Amino acid sequence: MEKTVAEIAEYLNGRVVGDGSVVIRDIQGIDDAGQGDLTFIANRKYLKKLAATGASAVIVHPDMEGQGKNFIIVPDPYVAFGKALALFYPEQKEQPGVSNAAFIEDGASVSSEAVIYPGVTVCRGARIEKGVVLYSGVFIGRDAVIAEGSILHPNVTVYRRCLIGKRVILHAGVVVGSDGFGFAGPGGANLKIPQVGIVQIDDDVEIGANTTIDRGTMGRTWIQKSVKIDNLVQIAHNVVIGEYSIIVAQVGISGSAKLGKGVIIGGQAGVVGHIRIGDHVMAAARAGIHKDVPPHSIVAGAPHRLHREWLRIEASVPKIPDMNNAIADLMKRVEILEKKN
Amino acid sequence: MEKTVAEIAEYLNGRVVGDGSVVIRDIQGIDDAGQGDLTFIANRKYLKKLAATGASAVIVHPDMEGQGKNFIIVPDPYVAFGKALALFYPEQKEQPGVSNAAFIEDGASVSSEAVIYPGVTVCRGARIEKGVVLYSGVFIGRDAVIAEGSILHPNVTVYRRCLIGKRVILHAGVVVGSDGFGFAGPGGANLKIPQVGIVQIDDDVEIGANTTIDRGTMGRTWIQKSVKIDNLVQIAHNVVIGEYSIIVAQVGISGSAKLGKGVIIGGQAGVVGHIRIGDHVMAAARAGIHKDVPPHSIVAGAPHRLHREWLRIEASVPKIPDMNNAIADLMKRVEILEKKN
Amino acid sequence: MEKTVAEIAEYLNGRVVGDGSVVIRDIQGIDDAGQGDLTFIANRKYLKKLAATGASAVIVHPDMEGQGKNFIIVPDPYVAFGKALALFYPEQKEQPGVSNAAFIEDGASVSSEAVIYPGVTVCRGARIEKGVVLYSGVFIGRDAVIAEGSILHPNVTVYRRCLIGKRVILHAGVVVGSDGFGFAGPGGANLKIPQVGIVQIDDDVEIGANTTIDRGTMGRTWIQKSVKIDNLVQIAHNVVIGEYSIIVAQVGISGSAKLGKGVIIGGQAGVVGHIRIGDHVMAAARAGIHKDVPPHSIVAGAPHRLHREWLRIEASVPKIPDMNNAIADLMKRVEILEKKN
Repeated sequence: MEKTVAEIAEYLNGRVVGDGSVVIRDIQGIDDAGQGDLTFIANRKYLKKLAATGASAVIVHPDMEGQGKNFIIVPDPYVAFGKALALFYPEQKEQPGVSNAAFIEDGASVSSEAVIYPGVTVCRGARIEKGVVLYSGVFIGRDAVIAEGSILHPNVTVYRRCLIGKRVILHAGVVVGSDGFGFAGPGGANLKIPQVGIVQIDDDVEIGANTTIDRGTMGRTWIQKSVKIDNLVQIAHNVVIGEYSIIVAQVGISGSAKLGKGVIIGGQAGVVGHIRIGDHVMAAARAGIHKDVPPHSIVAGAPHRLHREWLRIEASVPKIPDMNNAIADLMKRVEILEKKN
Repeated sequence: MEKTVAEIAEYLNGRVVGDGSVVIRDIQGIDDAGQGDLTFIANRKYLKKLAATGASAVIVHPDMEGQGKNFIIVPDPYVAFGKALALFYPEQKEQPGVSNAAFIEDGASVSSEAVIYPGVTVCRGARIEKGVVLYSGVFIGRDAVIAEGSILHPNVTVYRRCLIGKRVILHAGVVVGSDGFGFAGPGGANLKIPQVGIVQIDDDVEIGANTTIDRGTMGRTWIQKSVKIDNLVQIAHNVVIGEYSIIVAQVGISGSAKLGKGVIIGGQAGVVGHIRIGDHVMAAARAGIHKDVPPHSIVAGAPHRLHREWLRIEASVPKIPDMNNAIADLMKRVEILEKKN
Repeated sequence: MEKTVAEIAEYLNGRVVGDGSVVIRDIQGIDDAGQGDLTFIANRKYLKKLAATGASAVIVHPDMEGQGKNFIIVPDPYVAFGKALALFYPEQKEQPGVSNAAFIEDGASVSSEAVIYPGVTVCRGARIEKGVVLYSGVFIGRDAVIAEGSILHPNVTVYRRCLIGKRVILHAGVVVGSDGFGFAGPGGANLKIPQVGIVQIDDDVEIGANTTIDRGTMGRTWIQKSVKIDNLVQIAHNVVIGEYSIIVAQVGISGSAKLGKGVIIGGQAGVVGHIRIGDHVMAAARAGIHKDVPPHSIVAGAPHRLHREWLRIEASVPKIPDMNNAIADLMKRVEILEKKN
């Protein structure tokens, strides 16, 4: 694809500074960009890379406007960069149709406007709406629903009765609706508690590869609108994740924990069961969240603390050995003083 | 389904307090339960919810017997709740039969009383016994055995020669028998050590979605009777997990570690290789277990310590910055005293 | 298989001490080995097991040569053990051929010397070279390349345009090329940034079960020659892992992190985004690597420190409660002294 800087600026509702007639053929990161490439700066700390970049044009914020380069000025360069990527790399639409080599049980409902690859299984009572894409190896259990426009990548499993909303993206290997981990007399009888609830995933959710979401014991495990979950995350039974929350890779969320709206949980963090995390809480990578967190808190560490408190403690940790030595020294000196007195 | 409180009590070998003729239509958690619902209280700390619940009846322990509600009194309310769930939500039995769209290699043995979905692969020499259910995308390698009544959910892979016992449940995406991670000259030559052992999974084991269990280098990786493993757990080559143990989500157990009976390992914990964990050890979530643990110990932290010791240290950690300040202050004051003396 | 000790020694370029005519039928670990078994000692700390082993012969290093046993003396016993395993357990070669029950789209190129199992999907534009083995449930997206001799175990997904080198092994459930986790306005608008790059995996890489590797936002995520990655590892977009590096199970590596050559990252460690880890760095299990690490460093802890510094701090940590008590005691005693003076 070829577009001039001016054409791209118009598409992005941006303003050109420099030569709008320059031709752009691709988009690259600022370190890799060369002749014919568009790049972007979304963070002032990368401004120093501006002089060295070989890019033919740069998307920047108004307050980063510099000289000697061709700029497209926009209020949010990262958003504009995303839109430019979508312009240069349009999604390849699949041809609707149900493969002869897919396994559709009698009593399943599959829209003729869906795309069903070979090797897909759809069980009876399930409903696949229009615009859905099911890649090979996808399994849709009985009475499950996949609503309009959702894309399930290869080898995704959706267990019976689970509900997937509109425009949801499930990456390869995602499991939705496996049994929650519930046993009476753990370590002894290990009697299985039946897990008869469901998973409900609302519209515009995206879930990363090989992430697992267990069905509710009763009721539902609920992933609300526009939640984004990364790879290899574990969501236990009856968890609720509030809309627009972000869960980074390898996080584990234990049973019945409730997260508010717009919560951000860093990678490899853990959340214990039956607690509430308020709206817009941010938890650092590796945080171990062991009790309720009030809205808008920023927490870190395991067990978690307020981030500023965590920073203060962490700054002291390397001093512990010297502190220990200083105490021994003080002990001796005080003993000497005590003898003299 | 409709059952009276008296009928359910009889089924649970429980005793009715209140009105046994009340009709129950579903089972719900205490917060969600309303008219026509049965609920339960398994822990005294939830007793305060009793007054507020809309449930038509509550399963409780004899010492929780209260007034103004209909009760079913049983010695273990959580176990009774599990049984009640199984009563109201009976498992849907699959019709035995081997799908024409399954791929059964010549020389494989598949019981006519097994349920084999489309898109299953069973390699030569493998044996699938009666009552087994293999969902779509399941792959059974050569000479593997799946014993009576086991259920393998979609997209489970069992590598060659691995042995799965009776009534085992493998959730979607589980991998049994992948190569252990063994290389001579790690970081240099990276020469692969062949992994020629197997995985043996004994009766009544349940394994969560996308968990991985590597085959032994030689001999076996061994998951003993009635072990329950949660989602996204990593079990390395030649690990042994003793019967009735519980392994919570995202735990990693390194090569040749041996766990005793009835061990409980909390979520996201890690166990280093070649160590022994005694019977009935409990390890907290996130524990980093780096050396042998005697039977019946309760441990926490990384590196792990006895739980009571860990609690004592954790209580002191927030004081480190103030301790550091106090030491500096003491230093000055002792110096002044020393000058005076 | 039966081989004499002398025959095995010749195959391993080793020297016999003891009776070379003894017949070996299998290979076992030193604890399990009995009559007819070969075993090995690769580490002096296991020398004490030599007297007790029932093995008929032992592979050892020249400086471990003992008496009363049959030995095969080699410079690297672990490497020799690996070779002996390969001798006793030769890989079973698959018959080349493309199953009629595989789904090969028009416009895909599949070598007649490849092995394609039933239930494999290869999309148009993809190229499968000779000697490749694709097991059931493998999905190869459009325009992806799988080069000579690579083995993709069941239910592996390779997204569009990704490049897999020669002799690569991808274990069951691996996902290559899922979208990187990029959203503008995280926790708010959550606007998806298209992920239009690829994953490039070079020759001789091995990747463990259910590991996930995201495609680059632009450009590539790059796993270089002979890298070995364990199970359930998360590799984010635009990460580069230098050749011969070793990544142990459940590690997470965040976006755009660059690892040098021969790096070893212990299990459950985490690496934050956009940092550089120098050649031959070793990071302990559970390390939380939060900033650049110079070459050849050994680091541990979260946040990471030099290993020797970490050891020094960890040794002091159990003393914190006593330190706190000692400070309180000193405070009182100094106060008394101050009053006297």
